[in-house]
Amino acid sequence: MDRRSLIKNAGIAGVLAAGIAPAVHAQAAVRWRLASSFPKPLDTIYGGAEVFSNAVKAMSGGKFEISVHAAGELMPAFGVVDGVQQGSVEAAHTVPYYFYGKNPAFALGSAIPFGMNARQMNAWMMHGNGRKLMDEFYGTYGMVSFNGGNTGTQMGGWFRKEIKTPADLKGLKMRLGGGLVGDVMTKLGVVPQSIPGGEIYQALEKGTIDAAEWVGPYDDQKLGFNKVAPNYYYPGWWEGGPEVDFFINKKAFDALSPENKAIIAAASAMAAQDMLAKYDARNPTALKQLIGAKTKLLPFSKEILDASYKASLQVYEENSAKSPEWKKIYADFLAFQRDQVAWFRVAEGRFDNYMQSMKL
Amino acid sequence: MDRRSLIKNAGIAGVLAAGIAPAVHAQAAVRWRLASSFPKPLDTIYGGAEVFSNAVKAMSGGKFEISVHAAGELMPAFGVVDGVQQGSVEAAHTVPYYFYGKNPAFALGSAIPFGMNARQMNAWMMHGNGRKLMDEFYGTYGMVSFNGGNTGTQMGGWFRKEIKTPADLKGLKMRLGGGLVGDVMTKLGVVPQSIPGGEIYQALEKGTIDAAEWVGPYDDQKLGFNKVAPNYYYPGWWEGGPEVDFFINKKAFDALSPENKAIIAAASAMAAQDMLAKYDARNPTALKQLIGAKTKLLPFSKEILDASYKASLQVYEENSAKSPEWKKIYADFLAFQRDQVAWFRVAEGRFDNYMQSMKL
Repeated sequence: MDRRSLIKNAGIAGVLAAGIAPAVHAQAAVRWRLASSFPKPLDTIYGGAEVFSNAVKAMSGGKFEISVHAAGELMPAFGVVDGVQQGSVEAAHTVPYYFYGKNPAFALGSAIPFGMNARQMNAWMMHGNGRKLMDEFYGTYGMVSFNGGNTGTQMGGWFRKEIKTPADLKGLKMRLGGGLVGDVMTKLGVVPQSIPGGEIYQALEKGTIDAAEWVGPYDDQKLGFNKVAPNYYYPGWWEGGPEVDFFINKKAFDALSPENKAIIAAASAMAAQDMLAKYDARNPTALKQLIGAKTKLLPFSKEILDASYKASLQVYEENSAKSPEWKKIYADFLAFQRDQVAWFRVAEGRFDNYMQSMKL
Repeated sequence: MDRRSLIKNAGIAGVLAAGIAPAVHAQAAVRWRLASSFPKPLDTIYGGAEVFSNAVKAMSGGKFEISVHAAGELMPAFGVVDGVQQGSVEAAHTVPYYFYGKNPAFALGSAIPFGMNARQMNAWMMHGNGRKLMDEFYGTYGMVSFNGGNTGTQMGGWFRKEIKTPADLKGLKMRLGGGLVGDVMTKLGVVPQSIPGGEIYQALEKGTIDAAEWVGPYDDQKLGFNKVAPNYYYPGWWEGGPEVDFFINKKAFDALSPENKAIIAAASAMAAQDMLAKYDARNPTALKQLIGAKTKLLPFSKEILDASYKASLQVYEENSAKSPEWKKIYADFLAFQRDQVAWFRVAEGRFDNYMQSMKL
C-alpha cells in the first residue's frame, strides 16, 4: 500500500474519532514527509526529527503532521538535498557538510576543521550573518534551513595503533565521514575511506582500515570499536560543533500559514536544544564505560593538531578559488569566529578550565 | 486607564479588523500577563520575554497573547514569585537565584558558585533530573518552570583596585546580585552591598563601594563602569551558566489546551536559545570596545579562586543543614556536574583550548 495514503487515511480517521467539527479540520490540514539522513540506531541524532515532528503535531493540534523516514526508507541518506529540491519530500534532517561534493560551501553550515563550537555556531547563525548567508546559498537549491541539532565536539576516532606525530598519519587508511575532512586528511597523507557505520567494526577488526571516526562516546560505544581499535583520540578537530539542520523545500514553506511557519521555527529550536542536551547528558556515562572496558583515551599531540590546522587552511584557500560561495561565506565565518574565540578565552574559557582542573 | 482593559480592547479590535469569523476567535482566546524581573535597558535579557511572547502569538495566530511588563511596572523585580503564586500574573521571567532568601534551593535552578556552564545546565535540566526536581520544588509555590535563557559565564566585575590575593578581598565593599554569592563572599571577608543597576556607577565613582559585578561586556559597557573602576576581572565564578526561567502559575498552565501547552514549551526553547546566542554574539564587540577604552582585563588568581571554591563548599554544607530541598537537589546537581566536567575535559575542552591558543 502507498505510504502516503496510509498516513492520510489514518489522519482522517483520527480527526473523525475525536469528533471535531468538519468546518475546523477542513481548513488547514497539512501533511509533510521528512527524509532523515540518519539510521534509527543513531537514536539521539535521528530522534531530533521526531522531537521536531512531535512538537509540530502537538502545537497544531494535529492539523500539521510531518512523517519522519529513516535514511534509505524514501531515498538514500545523501539523496535528501535532491529530494527536497525536487519536492519529492517537503523536508529533510541532515548534516549540511554531507553535500560538500555539490559545493564546498555546504560545510560552512555545519562544521569545518578548526571551526566554531556549538555555542559559537548558534551565535553566528542566529545573531551574526550565518543563517542569512546560508539560506541565500541554500536558496539556489530551492531550500530554506532551520537549526536541527548539534552533537557538540566529536571524538577524533579509534586507532589500531598509537599516533604520535604527523609522520604516523602517512599512509593510514581511515574511515572518515565528510568530504572536507577527507581533503584535509589527504594533505596529511591519510587515505580516506568511505564506509557505512554498520561495516566499520569488521573493517577495523580485519585490518582493512587502520582507524575510523564516528561520533562520540554514546554512539561509538554501541558499535563496540574499543574491542578492535583501543586507542580513542580526542578531539575531533574537524567537528568542533557540527550543526545538524532541517532543510525545507522553499515553495512548501512559503505556502504555509504564518502560524505554521512560526511553529516550524519554534519546533526546530526545541529539537536543536534537545539534541545537544541529550548528547551532553549521555556521553559522560558512555565514556566512563568505555574506559572501564580498556579503551585508551589519548589526546592528539600538538604537532598533529598544528599540522592539521595548516593543512586545513590550505584546503580553505583552494575552496575559495573553486567556489565563490565558499569564499564569501567563509570570510564572514572567519571574522565572526575570530571575535568569538577572543571572547571565549576570557570568562567562559577560564571558568571551564578551572572547573576541569578540579576533583569534584 | 486600566492596562488590562487597554490590552483586551486592543486585542478585540485587532481580531475584528482582521475579519476573523466570531466562531473562531470566540473559542480559544487566552490573554496572560508576564512580569519580568528585568528593566528594559537590559535589552538582551529583558528581550527574552518578548521573543517568547511574540512566538506564542505567532504560533497561535493571535489566539494566545502574553503581555510583557518590565520590572516595577506591575510589581517589584523581586516580587514576581509572589505574583505568580498568588495568580496576580500568570507568568514571570526571572532568575531563580533571586529567591534564595525564600529557600536556598531556588539558586540550584539558575546558578551556584562553581556550578555548571550553560550547556551542562541544559543537559541536567532536559535529560538529567534537573527540571523534574526543580518543578517538584517550585510546585510548593504553585509554579511550573521553563527555560527562559542563559547569559553564559558572566564577568567577575569591576574593581577600583587590583585584587591579587584573598587578603585583598577582606573588608571590600562589593555590589553583588544574589544571596548565595553574598553568603560565600561574606566568608571571604567581603561586605556585600545591594544596589540597583542604575546607582552602581555613582557609588563606584564616589568610592561608597570598592567593586561591583553586573553581567558581562555587553550590558556592563552601557553603564560605563570602566571610567570609575578600570580593573575588569574574570570569570564570574558564581555564575558559570546562570539560567533564566519562565515561572508559570500551575493552575493557569494546567487550564491551557494541549496545543497551548506545547506552544509554551517550544516558545520557551526558542527564547532560551536566542538569549544565549545573542549574548555570545554581542559580548565580543563590547569587550573589544571596553579594552579600547582603557579597561584592564584581569583574571582572578588561582589563590582567589581556590579560596572562593572552599568558601562555597562551606556554604553548601550550611544550606544542606538548613534546607532539605537544597540537600536533595544539590546531591543530584553535584553528581551530574561531576560527570559533565569529566567529559567536558576531553573533546570539548581540548578543542576549545586549542582554538583559544591560536591567533586566527
